[in-house]
Amino acid sequence: MDIAAYMAEVGQQARQAARAVARSTTAVRNQALLATAEALDAARDELATANARDLEGGRANGLEAAMLDRLELTPARIDAMIEGLRQVASLPDPIGEITDMTYRPSGIQVGRMRVPLGVIGIIYESRPNVTVEAASLCLKSGNATILRGGSEAIHSNQAIAACLAKGLKESGLPESAVQVVKTTDRAAVGELITMPRFVDVIVPRGGKGLIERISRDARVPVIKHLDGICHVYIDSHADPEKALNIAVNSKTQRYGTCNTMETLLVDQEIAADILPLLADAFRDKGVELRGCPQTMDILPDVVRATEDDWGTEYLAPVLAVKVIDGLDGAIEHINRYSSQHTDSIVTENYTRARRFLTEVDSSSVMVNASTRFADGFEYGLGAEIGISTDKIHARGPVGLEGLTSQKYVVFGDGHIRT
Amino acid sequence: MDIAAYMAEVGQQARQAARAVARSTTAVRNQALLATAEALDAARDELATANARDLEGGRANGLEAAMLDRLELTPARIDAMIEGLRQVASLPDPIGEITDMTYRPSGIQVGRMRVPLGVIGIIYESRPNVTVEAASLCLKSGNATILRGGSEAIHSNQAIAACLAKGLKESGLPESAVQVVKTTDRAAVGELITMPRFVDVIVPRGGKGLIERISRDARVPVIKHLDGICHVYIDSHADPEKALNIAVNSKTQRYGTCNTMETLLVDQEIAADILPLLADAFRDKGVELRGCPQTMDILPDVVRATEDDWGTEYLAPVLAVKVIDGLDGAIEHINRYSSQHTDSIVTENYTRARRFLTEVDSSSVMVNASTRFADGFEYGLGAEIGISTDKIHARGPVGLEGLTSQKYVVFGDGHIRT
Repeated sequence: MDIAAYMAEVGQQARQAARAVARSTTAVRNQALLATAEALDAARDELATANARDLEGGRANGLEAAMLDRLELTPARIDAMIEGLRQVASLPDPIGEITDMTYRPSGIQVGRMRVPLGVIGIIYESRPNVTVEAASLCLKSGNATILRGGSEAIHSNQAIAACLAKGLKESGLPESAVQVVKTTDRAAVGELITMPRFVDVIVPRGGKGLIERISRDARVPVIKHLDGICHVYIDSHADPEKALNIAVNSKTQRYGTCNTMETLLVDQEIAADILPLLADAFRDKGVELRGCPQTMDILPDVVRATEDDWGTEYLAPVLAVKVIDGLDGAIEHINRYSSQHTDSIVTENYTRARRFLTEVDSSSVMVNASTRFADGFEYGLGAEIGISTDKIHARGPVGLEGLTSQKYVVFGDGHIRT
Repeated sequence: MDIAAYMAEVGQQARQAARAVARSTTAVRNQALLATAEALDAARDELATANARDLEGGRANGLEAAMLDRLELTPARIDAMIEGLRQVASLPDPIGEITDMTYRPSGIQVGRMRVPLGVIGIIYESRPNVTVEAASLCLKSGNATILRGGSEAIHSNQAIAACLAKGLKESGLPESAVQVVKTTDRAAVGELITMPRFVDVIVPRGGKGLIERISRDARVPVIKHLDGICHVYIDSHADPEKALNIAVNSKTQRYGTCNTMETLLVDQEIAADILPLLADAFRDKGVELRGCPQTMDILPDVVRATEDDWGTEYLAPVLAVKVIDGLDGAIEHINRYSSQHTDSIVTENYTRARRFLTEVDSSSVMVNASTRFADGFEYGLGAEIGISTDKIHARGPVGLEGLTSQKYVVFGDGHIRT
């Protein structure tokens, strides 16, 4: 198989389909989503068979248990895919919205119209449900999609692709509006991320290694979702109860998510009072603490944190703790070590809260709230394709709007420039 | 000189200065702009001396007359720089604006705050006034800037840089908030566009060759401004007077700008009526027409257009003319040959106007208006750093907003996720 020729064909078809999708009405795109949901429901047997092949292959290749778990399409996961499609169908259509319409002194009327990006390439790892999730968000926002899933999920993904094709066909949209790459050859990824003629943006979903590799090699813009080294700073004017609740929730509500707190900063003025309470709470939850020397003075049992700890995303029941000399020190530490994902201050002090919001350069900055809220659903976006740690285009949780652009529309009545 | 080490130092200083600029108040940034204006006014002699050195060098190196003209800092151009600084100072500050603030079912309050991008790298060619223009827009929008002008303008740019430094210092901002690269070594550009640690976005200003080269080699997002192959489509339901005015204005108001029409499309139903009138008007203006065979049937004197003409940005008194079979044909031609910059339809037909707006995939789409309106000032942005032909981040004329990003702000009262 000539991978370059195959991917160019996929790209060309996507570019062509993108025009049809961009032109389509809200009703047609929603119909495609609902018809795909029905097709998935009707194809449970085929999905199970395809998934069993992948699982068998995975076991034969010695995939870890966690990988196999992510690969599995249980009936509950198929239910969730179907429900997800219905939810996306019920979201408001971002496309075509015209805003900021004003008359200019010249007499022309100028505004902005929200439009699809065009063709979106999605590169992801094992979970086959991402196929439906990503395709549905791209379709809803008027884009064509090229999906490249993990090779271990190829049969499951192709079975899902068949359902998507059926849904598209039933609604009168071109089947190539959603294409799942048919080859597991890694060269296909290299082609996909270097075809600016056919692909407008790449959204990689997966581990940091994957995303860094793609960002480095891409000749197409990438919506990046790198690591989440999130901080909670307990200010000396914090309400102790809120501080305790927020710190514990930010760390322990889930350990493996990017919006989980990885470093706790405590103002030195209240460290001696609050750290023992925090240590008790974290001990109860089985969280290992790694502290700076000042933390260890207060909590002698704590492991000594090394320089590396301040820049580590544990994704595990481990927490780095540092005693800080006031707000300036906290902001400095965060702007140095944070991955600019999500950082929260706990304080009752108005001026410090305002300074934290302004001076911490992260995609989500919070006052008296758990970092775990940094999420497209919690923010009311209705959906989330990822959390951008970039500043360009989209920052923070990316919903449908992040998959769109705005063009200028100008209405005249024979106006010319003088 | 170790260029890599020098640029890394410039980058590091810019990153540090960016924090101070981001934190600064509107008043302080405006003060820096106004103080720079005064410094320029006071430095007219130094500017003239430095510019004379550049002009002399340029003549010695055999620069073309057009290049030398662009290089010259006449008193009127210095006046314009000063006036530009005052205008930018008077624009509303985009930074800190909080929008979309809503309460979520969880009880948190979520909104978005407009924030600077951080460090912006500007790469440009001969015109030294770009130094002030670009620096002022970046500073106004809370960013630090690294400017790399053409080597032929190095002395002028350094003299301008001294004024900027003075303005920054007087307002209490770090002088490194605006740095003009001191070396003319081309390797400096290579470093500037591959330092994602220090530079958040690159804005190249210059010819297509420069921008393509930078886009290809950059490891940092680029706000691209490629060519403008703009179309006017005269529909069969056009008002002939509006059609004539718009076509002539779009082509002849200025020839060398990116929003100048390069191809005129005329519906075949009215071609025989309107083309002779258009030909007269263009003959009066000295515009050479190159036509398709159908155009030549009506206007036998016209030069035959080749396939290349449909994809050429003439930037000159030359116009390609094509007779088209209705709206579908026009949209197809435009989506194939347009550079997705600006395209306009002339029609009185409501449905065709709406279809053109929706289906033409360009950064500005117009009804009954001259393409020459596609401009940040005409659109009311108050300023323009370029016109983006990309869809990612900023599309069309880019003003202050395009130099900013939005972060999420979350207000809670001890809220945790359950």
